[in-house]
Amino acid sequence: MAITVVGSVAFDTVETPSGRKERCLAGAATYFSLAASFFTDVRIIAVVGEDFGASEQAVFDAHKIDTTGIQHAPGKTFFWQGSYLENLNEARTLQTDLNVFAGFEPKIPDAYRDSQFLFLANIDPVLQRRVREATPQAKLVAGDTMNYWIKDHKSALLEVLKGLDILLINDTETRMLAGNSNLVLAARAVMEMGPRMLVVKHGEYGATLFHKTISGAPESRTFKTPAFPLEQVTDPTGAGDSFAGGFFGYLASQRELTPGAFRRAMFYGSVMGSFTVERFGTERLQQLTREEIEHRFNLFRELTHLD
Amino acid sequence: MAITVVGSVAFDTVETPSGRKERCLAGAATYFSLAASFFTDVRIIAVVGEDFGASEQAVFDAHKIDTTGIQHAPGKTFFWQGSYLENLNEARTLQTDLNVFAGFEPKIPDAYRDSQFLFLANIDPVLQRRVREATPQAKLVAGDTMNYWIKDHKSALLEVLKGLDILLINDTETRMLAGNSNLVLAARAVMEMGPRMLVVKHGEYGATLFHKTISGAPESRTFKTPAFPLEQVTDPTGAGDSFAGGFFGYLASQRELTPGAFRRAMFYGSVMGSFTVERFGTERLQQLTREEIEHRFNLFRELTHLD
Repeated sequence: MAITVVGSVAFDTVETPSGRKERCLAGAATYFSLAASFFTDVRIIAVVGEDFGASEQAVFDAHKIDTTGIQHAPGKTFFWQGSYLENLNEARTLQTDLNVFAGFEPKIPDAYRDSQFLFLANIDPVLQRRVREATPQAKLVAGDTMNYWIKDHKSALLEVLKGLDILLINDTETRMLAGNSNLVLAARAVMEMGPRMLVVKHGEYGATLFHKTISGAPESRTFKTPAFPLEQVTDPTGAGDSFAGGFFGYLASQRELTPGAFRRAMFYGSVMGSFTVERFGTERLQQLTREEIEHRFNLFRELTHLD
Repeated sequence: MAITVVGSVAFDTVETPSGRKERCLAGAATYFSLAASFFTDVRIIAVVGEDFGASEQAVFDAHKIDTTGIQHAPGKTFFWQGSYLENLNEARTLQTDLNVFAGFEPKIPDAYRDSQFLFLANIDPVLQRRVREATPQAKLVAGDTMNYWIKDHKSALLEVLKGLDILLINDTETRMLAGNSNLVLAARAVMEMGPRMLVVKHGEYGATLFHKTISGAPESRTFKTPAFPLEQVTDPTGAGDSFAGGFFGYLASQRELTPGAFRRAMFYGSVMGSFTVERFGTERLQQLTREEIEHRFNLFRELTHLD
């Protein structure tokens, strides 16, 4: 089944203990699309500027990502510059130029209308809601957000949450959104806001899936995936978006959304995040093969399974 | 097989968001012994003062822990007071009275001489080393330490590490000991110091076992256990020592130390830690049953296994 994703396509300049890279092709929708493209057809809605050229387009084309929904606007593409020199777990933002993203009005191409999977990457919740309402055919809707929208645009965000099946956010965002420091209670509170599932991303410690609609003890509605033990993290940017792409891409590739499919999707999410951080920007995703993905999936099983 | 453990028996006064408890029976060797006692025979070496009475002795007796090696000295038992009001993940120490512990000289009762499993809880590495040298019959030796010994008594600690099979410490201690911020590289460096296995405890995120002597890819020498998703953490004190007790107690109960036994031991460690934090001090361990342990072990499997 095809996925439609709406979000940012950007150029990033990042510095990490491994080095510095200028103007990598990046953005949440880019990482998501590339990661999901290993599992299913992906259709992207975004806006780019005149500095988005043939070589950037070729990255999407190589992964058969439908870019009909990428608008080309006069001006420059969204630009972000950040540093991980002090803390590899959290970027320090040095510069953010919204550029053409400031006036982004998502438009859904007719050819996208039959997408049954919709992913709302981290953008203004007003836009997320508009896209959600314009895609009533979507049978599974997932999304991401960030501290900025939780703090300063909460009412708009709460409207979006009502239309989501699955929310993917990190520990801090979960606690902030719920106003509860206990993660289990916070997760439950967030699911009361709309989503029937919550994926909490723990960075280097993996992720937890909370599920409110499977019957049974509270514990059996939870599933954990570790992060891969990496000897070198070159650039953490995009790990969460790649997780989301692997997770949702795998779900979209399944005929039936069984509890087992969600568990495997958690593993594939973690696998895709672990590849992304091995190189700068989307370099690793661009060169990845499905065989490498399956190999690492099996290592994840060994890492966690008793037998 | 019987385990000998050397370490502290203490009284703790703790305050947490759940309340305040005065003079709980505590100490690393106490938590370890109680947790391990569900799996095997435990023999403890420690020192207590005149305030250690019949009710404290009864706790050890109820778990058939051999207390021949507990010395009774004039004065008061080791006392610690801490607060978790600001941060449930890290105690703020308000008071430490070493009392009789200041002059602790571990003595190994003859009846302990056939213990094949030895656990050196977090005490002065000079004492750890002395106990290690006095128990040459031990076939598996594990131990713990803390930032204080790593920072200010490193040479004595390095001598202890040479005699350890397994070291159990937390993330921060691993990075500090190795002087490397990447956990995988830090773990490898720590294993070069002596222990052939390293268990890194991640608090609310579980723990990772690193193993240098199993052949295969680096990834397949790693095993991860999650922490249990708890709705209430009443008192985090003793979680790490209870993990160690469950982990090492389970190993001591096995006829053969297969890779599978180490994996299950990781799960049992995490299970025991999760029970401890549900109540103040050792309250939960005192009332626990083996059936409850098995039930939670199975929930851990559900939490992590794909099928």
